[in-house]
Amino acid sequence: MATPKVEPRTLSGFRDYLPDVMLPRQRMLERVAAVFESFGFAPLSTPALEYAECLLGKYGDEGDKLLYRFRDNGDRDVALRYDLTVPLARLMGMNRDLPKPFKRYHIAPVWRAERPGRGRFREFTQCDVDIVGADSLMADAECIAVGASVLRALGVERFEIRVNNRKLLTAMLDMVRVEGEAALGVLRTIDKLPKIGEAATRELLRTENALDDAAVDTVFRFLALDARSPGTLEAFFEGHATGLLGASELRAVLQAVAEQGFEGSVAVDLSIARGLDYYNGTIYETFVGGLESIGSVMSGGRYDSLLGLYTGEAMPAVGISLGVDRLFSGLQELGLIEARASVTQALVTVFDDATRPHSYAIANTLRAAGVSAEVFLGAGKLKKQFTYADRKQIPWAVVAGPDELARGEVTLKHLKTGEQHTLPVDALAARIRGA
Amino acid sequence: MATPKVEPRTLSGFRDYLPDVMLPRQRMLERVAAVFESFGFAPLSTPALEYAECLLGKYGDEGDKLLYRFRDNGDRDVALRYDLTVPLARLMGMNRDLPKPFKRYHIAPVWRAERPGRGRFREFTQCDVDIVGADSLMADAECIAVGASVLRALGVERFEIRVNNRKLLTAMLDMVRVEGEAALGVLRTIDKLPKIGEAATRELLRTENALDDAAVDTVFRFLALDARSPGTLEAFFEGHATGLLGASELRAVLQAVAEQGFEGSVAVDLSIARGLDYYNGTIYETFVGGLESIGSVMSGGRYDSLLGLYTGEAMPAVGISLGVDRLFSGLQELGLIEARASVTQALVTVFDDATRPHSYAIANTLRAAGVSAEVFLGAGKLKKQFTYADRKQIPWAVVAGPDELARGEVTLKHLKTGEQHTLPVDALAARIRGA
Repeated sequence: MATPKVEPRTLSGFRDYLPDVMLPRQRMLERVAAVFESFGFAPLSTPALEYAECLLGKYGDEGDKLLYRFRDNGDRDVALRYDLTVPLARLMGMNRDLPKPFKRYHIAPVWRAERPGRGRFREFTQCDVDIVGADSLMADAECIAVGASVLRALGVERFEIRVNNRKLLTAMLDMVRVEGEAALGVLRTIDKLPKIGEAATRELLRTENALDDAAVDTVFRFLALDARSPGTLEAFFEGHATGLLGASELRAVLQAVAEQGFEGSVAVDLSIARGLDYYNGTIYETFVGGLESIGSVMSGGRYDSLLGLYTGEAMPAVGISLGVDRLFSGLQELGLIEARASVTQALVTVFDDATRPHSYAIANTLRAAGVSAEVFLGAGKLKKQFTYADRKQIPWAVVAGPDELARGEVTLKHLKTGEQHTLPVDALAARIRGA
Repeated sequence: MATPKVEPRTLSGFRDYLPDVMLPRQRMLERVAAVFESFGFAPLSTPALEYAECLLGKYGDEGDKLLYRFRDNGDRDVALRYDLTVPLARLMGMNRDLPKPFKRYHIAPVWRAERPGRGRFREFTQCDVDIVGADSLMADAECIAVGASVLRALGVERFEIRVNNRKLLTAMLDMVRVEGEAALGVLRTIDKLPKIGEAATRELLRTENALDDAAVDTVFRFLALDARSPGTLEAFFEGHATGLLGASELRAVLQAVAEQGFEGSVAVDLSIARGLDYYNGTIYETFVGGLESIGSVMSGGRYDSLLGLYTGEAMPAVGISLGVDRLFSGLQELGLIEARASVTQALVTVFDDATRPHSYAIANTLRAAGVSAEVFLGAGKLKKQFTYADRKQIPWAVVAGPDELARGEVTLKHLKTGEQHTLPVDALAARIRGA
């Protein structure tokens, strides 16, 4: 071909997933999806590309700048989705008759035109479950239960889902007369507390958020409350309706979580703030024991206004979102990811053209028994065939030479140990599966 | 929220997949992926967005016009992928050390800025398996065997994979002195034969492709050959090296397909041409019995030059691609798609707050036994809870009132038939699964 040579490269912030990463990643997401489905969440898919106006203005100017936005061939103003929540709002607006509560999960890539950095990509997978149209705090509790179940299913033994309620923060900020954009700024500062510590947070609240000393003290008095002890929150917010409502919501959610058997997996943390303005009730973040430094692997909360954007009606919603990349590297650190570059369990070697039909038959037998098998694409020197299996990290090789075949037998060789056994073809699958 | 109201809509040519479609679609793709993996194909993922220069020029000007191409925020010339093959070439160029043969599958959306029409979308899912770095015709045969295995796994009983070899067509056109772009034009005309019939095809060959009557006759003499009968192709191509090579390749592929037990699923069809210029050997298309009119559901072939674009070296490759939308609607027509709007098998009702912990416990028990269960998000009137289950097409409802619970029992109600039985909680999962 006469095409001029182009340098093969990917865009910065974008990644290929080769089989050695893609395989365990896919297995992880399959398990996650299975847990979602066990709770009755159904899969959903929306387009990657949408009218820009359907995606804009939900994140504020900062977010809008991060959209991949362009004019298509028909001069339409379009953009790649930035998350999976705004497309859900658009979908709910177009499908008002969907039976509610509507429970869906969505695992798909999103795109953000931001500067790539350590652990920050321009294309990354989001993994969300949401319950739309349920006022009940049982829905909030269910999202927490789903999250805890996911981590258990992935083998994570020690983790903590830290729960808070946005109304408590709003009420506390109202007590120190901070609201609107300024309140959001304070929440973002509070969000930094675990990372930067109390002294630096106090300093930021004074300088960046312009709180006076009394206000800063109130913030820290609130954060130090023992929220689970009966009456503590209620005393702090005495006479403040929003604060009292927040307290009762928090207690109701904790109650329903405990009833589902997840009491040991949750903690109240009044400093969990979630920087996005659309949360209005329960909020939560999740930390894996020993890996707190990687940050929250799973977070979300209740957001009752966002999904009503297209209908004008309130549409209560609560959800939880998994940080797929973060969770995957966390599982790797915990040794919970099985490294496998190959799906193939057995390579069936080919002695020559005359015995090839037998090699094919052996592979068919293995596949029918649930063992993934490939037939070497060629024939001849066994050494070459073993080298291929080795490089591909295929654990087993099946040797079927004319002598063995004449006896109805094959030789099964474990490539790492070099051990080999001669056994009947019928016994092959059980032997490989039992290994 | 004060955001101005925007009309919720999707771009023309783009689709939402609501659970009733997404669920069976996902189940279908899971089965397909399982077959791919049983043959040793590993999953792979590449970015949606690439440097435009890495995607351009592989399809010709016509294809390039169909790219979603734009300047990103960093003024880079970027485009959404148009297929999964060119990104594979780019990836092979960047990862030259990957052990070969490299066998991968990739199921992902691609984007084409073309006018949407019946069955033609701007965003659609491609589903490809490819074997890279294998000269052996066993690889061609394996792709055919994988395709046939996929259809069998999906329950399709009658189908035909029609096989041809591009070298035969090239040699035949060489005999009538047509080559290069003109040859490609003739192949595209031949591709229309099954749709428009012989007379119209002859007419097009004369008018659009400027073949004289003798050449048109040669084309049809070739198409009428009984390719499977020994010596027929060889006689036609006597003294023509490319033709003879094509004939021997075709026979070798058919032989290896037969050895794998798929002889009954393949036919030779010399009119299969595949309009893309990069095919250079085996080519195939697949038709489902009784649904020939929907067109090929699975096609591909050998393309030894395309993947070498980035390396300058030849990189032999052969693959097969499933038409996901077409296959799905085909399976629907054959009644092979189970329509399910809900993943939930059982709704556990909630009598009141006092019994709610029992409802949660029942749901946990069901999930642990592999039955997907949801707890009604609320409490009170059973009628309301049944209506929800009904609208969601959840087959079973579990009623756990205080009297039943006192006896360690629950009532299982089948919502469609109205039948109900009282049984111990322990027996619930088996009963639902056995239904």
